[in-house]
Order: sequence, then C-alpha cells, then structure tokens
Amino acid sequence: MSIQEVYRTSLALHTDLYQLSMAYGYWKEGLDQRRAVYHLYFRKNPFEGGLTVASGLKRVIDYLQTLRFDDSDIDYLRILTDACGDPLFDEEFYEYLKAFRFQGDLEAVPEGTIVFPHEPLLRVTGSLLECQLLESPLLNFVNFSTLVATKAARISLATAGDEVLEFGLRRAQGVDGALTASRSAYVGGVHATSNVLAGKIYGIPVKGTHAHSWVMAFDDEIESFYAFAKAMPGNSIFLVDTYNTLEGVKAAIEVGKWLKKEGKPFLGIRLDSGDLAYLSIVARQMLDKEGFEEAKIVASNELDERLIESLKSQGAKIAVWGVGTKLATAKDQPALDGVYKLSAITDEKGEWDYRIKLSEQILKISNPGILQVRRFFDEFGAIADVIYDEEKPLGKSAHIVDPFDPTKERWINTEQESVDLLEPIFRKGALVYQVPSIHESRERTLENLNFFHSGVKRFVNPHKYVVGMEKGLYDKKVELIRKIRQQTT
Amino acid sequence: MSIQEVYRTSLALHTDLYQLSMAYGYWKEGLDQRRAVYHLYFRKNPFEGGLTVASGLKRVIDYLQTLRFDDSDIDYLRILTDACGDPLFDEEFYEYLKAFRFQGDLEAVPEGTIVFPHEPLLRVTGSLLECQLLESPLLNFVNFSTLVATKAARISLATAGDEVLEFGLRRAQGVDGALTASRSAYVGGVHATSNVLAGKIYGIPVKGTHAHSWVMAFDDEIESFYAFAKAMPGNSIFLVDTYNTLEGVKAAIEVGKWLKKEGKPFLGIRLDSGDLAYLSIVARQMLDKEGFEEAKIVASNELDERLIESLKSQGAKIAVWGVGTKLATAKDQPALDGVYKLSAITDEKGEWDYRIKLSEQILKISNPGILQVRRFFDEFGAIADVIYDEEKPLGKSAHIVDPFDPTKERWINTEQESVDLLEPIFRKGALVYQVPSIHESRERTLENLNFFHSGVKRFVNPHKYVVGMEKGLYDKKVELIRKIRQQTT
Repeated sequence: MSIQEVYRTSLALHTDLYQLSMAYGYWKEGLDQRRAVYHLYFRKNPFEGGLTVASGLKRVIDYLQTLRFDDSDIDYLRILTDACGDPLFDEEFYEYLKAFRFQGDLEAVPEGTIVFPHEPLLRVTGSLLECQLLESPLLNFVNFSTLVATKAARISLATAGDEVLEFGLRRAQGVDGALTASRSAYVGGVHATSNVLAGKIYGIPVKGTHAHSWVMAFDDEIESFYAFAKAMPGNSIFLVDTYNTLEGVKAAIEVGKWLKKEGKPFLGIRLDSGDLAYLSIVARQMLDKEGFEEAKIVASNELDERLIESLKSQGAKIAVWGVGTKLATAKDQPALDGVYKLSAITDEKGEWDYRIKLSEQILKISNPGILQVRRFFDEFGAIADVIYDEEKPLGKSAHIVDPFDPTKERWINTEQESVDLLEPIFRKGALVYQVPSIHESRERTLENLNFFHSGVKRFVNPHKYVVGMEKGLYDKKVELIRKIRQQTT
Repeated sequence: MSIQEVYRTSLALHTDLYQLSMAYGYWKEGLDQRRAVYHLYFRKNPFEGGLTVASGLKRVIDYLQTLRFDDSDIDYLRILTDACGDPLFDEEFYEYLKAFRFQGDLEAVPEGTIVFPHEPLLRVTGSLLECQLLESPLLNFVNFSTLVATKAARISLATAGDEVLEFGLRRAQGVDGALTASRSAYVGGVHATSNVLAGKIYGIPVKGTHAHSWVMAFDDEIESFYAFAKAMPGNSIFLVDTYNTLEGVKAAIEVGKWLKKEGKPFLGIRLDSGDLAYLSIVARQMLDKEGFEEAKIVASNELDERLIESLKSQGAKIAVWGVGTKLATAKDQPALDGVYKLSAITDEKGEWDYRIKLSEQILKISNPGILQVRRFFDEFGAIADVIYDEEKPLGKSAHIVDPFDPTKERWINTEQESVDLLEPIFRKGALVYQVPSIHESRERTLENLNFFHSGVKRFVNPHKYVVGMEKGLYDKKVELIRKIRQQTT
C-alpha cells in the first residue's frame, strides 16, 4: 500500500507555505523553468554514531508519482490573503498548479544503504519551481525514516542476531508516525512489530504477548495464565511481573507443565520491569531446571542499544528484545538534521552555474555541483567514499581531501571495486527504478552493515569512516566561498 | 476534517497485536462483557515542568465514532498464525469483530485543560473487551498531542504574548506526525503554522517567508529581495542571513524604501542563524534609524522555551518566533509517559471489584476505583486538585493526602468554587459532547494558564501544585497493595 492509498486527502499541500510563495515568485519572475539541482543530505550521524541507514525513498516515490493539486487544494489556497488583505496568489498561478506534475529527474541511495554525513541521499534535477516545492515533503519523508532505520540498525548490532520486536505505537506521533516508525524499524533490521496496521499495510510480521491488564482482569495470576494458554495454546508467552516477578515465573512454569501435558509448546515468559539482568538469569535457571530450555525470555521496558549492550555484557539471558519508545521516537535524538540545498542552476544560456549556502560554520556550508558518491572496496569491505561532481568523472586515481581539514589528502586507485551510491529513480517524471520489497530493503541494511569495520559500528567514539571530496570539487567550493565573502564583506 | 476523513484505510487495526489477542482471550473465556473501568494518565509532567496541557481528545472522538473492522481488516487477521502454524483466532471471533462498535462511556478532560500527574485524562467504562482494544490507539492519540500542546504552551509562556509560528514539518514523523504536531501546537497556544495541509484540514492560520534557496537562485541577494517584493508586495519579509546578515539587513532596508515609495508595507526581516540577541538588537537599530519601526524581526533556528527566555532576558528585539524541530518533535523529551490502566471490573454478581497494578516503585502503582478530579479555586486562581472516587462523593470538607507522602494531609472546604475536570463525552457509544472548535480549545489553554500561579509555570524547579488523593480512596489503595503483597510474597 502506498502513502497515497493510506491518505484520503491530496498531499500536494503537505509542504511549508513558503515553498508555495517561492514557487509563485519564481513563476512571476519567469524563473520557474530554469533547471536546478538540489541535494538532500545530513551533516552529522545521529546518536553520536559512526554510520546512518538511508530510508524513506519508497514514500518519496509514491508521493512524486501521485503529486497533483486537486480542486480542494486550490479552493483552500484561494482563501489565503497577504498583509494587505489581497489574495496571496494570482488566479493564473492556480491554473499552473492544476497542471503541475513532477517532471524532473531523481537520483537516490536505495533504502537500506549505509551513508555518511554530507553524502547526498537524494539528488533532484528539474525546474527550479518543482525542485523548490519538494523541499519540505522530501525532508519530512526522509529525515524521520532514516533516523528510525539507523536506530533499529544500532539495536540489531547490539542484539547480535537475537530477535527484536518494535513495540512503539503508543508513544509514536499519531497514526502515520507509528506506521513510519514500524516500517523504518523493519528496514533497519528489526524482525517484527506489534502494530497490526503496519503489518496489514506493509507486510511486516506482527507479534505480541499480553499486558498486565490481562492478569489484573482475573482474580489471580495463575488463573490468568491458564486462561491465556487455553484460549491461545500456540501463543503462550506469559507476562510474569504484574505482582511479583519470580512468583510469576513459578506460575508460568506450572502452566507450562500443563501445556506440555496437552502437547502444546510453552513459548516463554516476558519481563517488563525490574532488574532485567538479574531476573532473566534467575528465570532462565528456573525454566531450565524444569526442562523448559526451549522457552524464551522476552524483555521490554525502555530498552535501547546501549542498555541492550550492557545487559548482554552482564550475561542477561534474554532471547527476544521488545523495543518501544526509544526506537519509535528515536528518543535520544528525535530529529535528523537533514537539509535540502540548491547546488546548481542554469544561467540564461542554459549553462550550469554552481551555488552554495554560506555559513559562519564551515560544516554548514553546502557543496556545489551535480554530486555523486562512489564507494570503494577492498577484500575486507568498504574503504572510502568519494563525493565528486558527475560533470567531471573520476580519473584512474582520485585525489581526495577531507573537506573540513584539507591538509588530510589521499589518492584512491579508482580501478578497485566500487559502486556509485546514487541510482536513477525518475527520468523526466517517469519512474525508472524497480522498487525493492520491504524485505529486500531490510536485507540490504543487514548486508551493508557487513561491509564496514566493527570500529565504525561501535557506539562509543566510533571510528570515522573516510569520506573525501574530490580535490577539483573542493577547489571549486573554496573559490565560490571566497567570491561570496569578497562580495559581501 | 476528522481523522477518518484523512485516512483512507480503516483504523481498527491501529493497535498492538496483543490487544486483539487479549480481546480474543476475554471472548473465549466469556469475560468479554464484564464491565470494566480504565484510566489514561501520565506520571510526570514533561520537560521537567510544573504542568501539562491535555490534548488529543478530538482525535479520540473521531476514532470511537467510526471504529469498525472492515473486510480487509478481517482478511488480514485471517492470515496470521500462531507458533503451531494454526490460525491465531477462530472464525467465530471474526463475526464478533465485524459487529463490534464502541458502546461504552467515555469521560474526558477537554483539550486545552491544564492537568497534573496521576489525574485521569480519559476514563473509559465499558465491556472489558472494548476497553482493552482501545488502549493502544488512545495512548497514541493522547500521548503525543498532549506532549506538543504542553511544549507549545511553555513556548507561549516564554514569548509572553509575542507571535509564535510552528515550522516543524520537515523534521516531524511523517505526514500525520506533522499534522498532529501542528494541530497540537495550535491548541497549546502558537498563532500559526507553516504546514499548509494543517491549515487546510484544521483551519489553523498558515504563515511563511522565503528560504535561503530563493536568495541563492538569484545572482545577488538584493536582486532576490526586489524580486520577492515585486512578486508578493503584501508578503515582504526578507531572510537576511544567506551570506552576511548585516549586509542582508542593509539590502532589505533598501528594498523596504522602494516598497514605501510604492505604498506597500515592508513587513520585516527574518534571522535564521548567528547570535540572535546581538543581530536582532543591531538590526532593530538599523531598521528604526531608517524609519521602519513597524518592520518586525522574525527569528528562527533551533528555538525552544529556554532559549527564548534567555534571548528575551538579553533584550533581543524579536517580535515573531519561528519554532520548528524542538516543538514538533518535543526534542528534549519526545515521549509522554502516558499509561492506560484497569482500575475496576465487575464480579460475577455485577459488583465493582477494584484493581491495581503493583510495582516496586510506588509512583508506578496505579489507582483503583472510578475516578474523577475536582479542582478548587479561590479568588486568585486554582488552589488544589482532588482525585476522588465517584462512587463516594466528597463531603463538605474533603480530607486529602499526598499519595506519595501520606504524612502530608490537608482538609479542603468543598463549598469553595470548584469544577470536575472529567466531562461526559460518550454514553453507551453515543457522543453526548459538544466538540469545541480548535480555536476554542486554544483559548481554553490560554485561559487555563491564567488560573495558575507563576511559580507553577516556571521552567526551573517549578512550584509543585497540590494534587491530593481523597483519604478514603488512598486507604482503599493501601489495603489493595497490602492484600496483593501478602498473597504473592
């Protein structure tokens, strides 16, 4: 199911007002059909990590394929007025909007690809007007999805192959906040979600146990476990911490024995509070002693990758990790700093003129050009990424610099194995990309993670993977910075 | 427009799988029609603040009015299997679900009401099955909305009446994450949003200026300002920091002079980077010197209530505050800890049997009963809230205790002015509430804030407003705790 199928309303107005104001301004100035290039990228790996997992492209594709201003959108825009009480836009502009379709080119990094700061995740080439209109929706689709996919990948790294369930619905940002979180978490590597609607819409496996209220609805705990086992004999995971956890484990074992007699599996128990390291170790001993080696211990309660890593190092006997709030809201950093910047525009003669956004902070100065990223590999995995301008293809040896410390230089043999990260998605408004299934995107994340050294995947002070800028491009950027600074100071 | 009008898909599966499992279990056990009472409440004011603004009820109402399991929902559930490979639920249960409608009672605190930890925001009375099914969606609707409304109210307090614009779309959690954030921020007191779809759907005022890319699309900055002023003479706020902020202010003033000659207003400038205190003071002087006292300074860039308070105390000359990421994601605390707990269930004779959820932490033990909150006022404002059991109406003098320190006792004269916070919303599944407009809900927030002493609204170490528990209810809770602890240890 696509985003357009979920929403009954047109998403053409899913944008900031100033995008429409600027679109209108370009149109009034006759600049709307100038060709432009914009890149979507972020400046810092989230969670103080060493890498990021690209996600959100599927939604971008759905959006671009169906982008239309319908009559209700135009009717709404007509009622908006400016400070003088005049209509915000001309009637003629509405005719323009009604006929508007995305007709540009899109290059993008497939979902599940590992990416790094300043590397474009999307590159949009099209009319200045269409590029501008897309800024807010593309950022909205990519920022949050990439953030959650990255958080999920980190959790997968911490659990080292154990099953991970996403439980975040109740703390997520509305219906779609929850759906996007479930989908992105799956792309990032979790195994299943508790969100049934996400299962229905995206085909993600759904899982769940029972809540404390189940236990509380009965006169005592063991009665509630028997009732659950009888009602759903193939779904017998018992939540044991409603009153006293270890007493709960004893009750679960008693019901487990009954299940065994009935020829049904005793799947396990869930711990949702208390000292998960201590309780899981003791519960494991209790289960094993009674011959329930196969019964799994599921744990939940404010888990994230750092707590999971700590529990693992303490020898916690947890086989399945339920992760909710801290995954679905990316609680320790709930926003990715993704931006979308103009990098080239055609002049009156149709030649590319490169542009940058200046800032006092060098990290915030955007890159000019028509950018691509090439990733190089040796026999052990990825060794370096090179950001270069497609107008100037790399030679046999690429001279690269660290754009934030140009005294760090390297020469890369470009005849090594390599891949360009940005792939063609749209050409003149037509989809030219075979959209992978969500399961393929998830596989891509897991495969991609294997390309990188463990140091890059570390949570504390991760190793900084080499991302260089081709020297000619870097020189061009410096030239542009100098030129603007001379003009404006 | 209601939530159901926005979503094309049925929202019946917008829930965690275990809610359906438990519903099925209750149905199999013949417990589904037992009457139950659940309360939705939170345990801690967000952002280390002294109060919280309730929000999200409108969405809850839309959801309950239209809750149906459609054929596609049932078809999806049919494909789910348990650990034995058997269908998760019986066919008969699907007939039950198809006929399912919300037929219970709902009491709720209206949107825009100030609330405190442990006070119910919602009270659902209905069949055990329907109460259970609602847990995940109600939490999803109320948690995030209440969080953002509270953040917005804090920002309104910091700006002390200045105009506040919500700019968070690009960092929000998808389409609906952005819509919910815009709506909740407006309920909490902001004046307008940049999100055009939120304007269309909810009738919130929309505002915006232009972006750096507008400036970058032209050969120089002043040319871009002239073009914007010509295209939209009633919308002339110029973003001045693309290259060099104070040079940008000079350029804006030059275009302002041209606007003046044309008889058009020069509305102001926007600062989006750098030292906002210093730059706004200098820019204000430059504008005033040229006779543009009416031109406003708009500021944006990672603002929140604490930064705004600091800028104000430094004498920053900012008239309009654009707040994005930190509002729309509630960045410093992106999840409210709202929970939904069973507090009473009828026994076989139809009598209420009170229930609690135990925890090692006293703060996490739920309250039993059928709860209401009465707020008392003196001539200066609100003085205390009392959580009491509706089955035992308050007498002329209410004896209350702090539930976490029962040595703190008070007697409240109940003949003072007071109001019960929970209002009837549904009776036997029928809406009995006149839903206020979003503008009325926003007014309610602003009025409600006036009821409380400034100490409660302080950001650092806020004064703790008195929320007491009626002594008889407290004694009942302690009795239940003792009873369970005796049984299970």
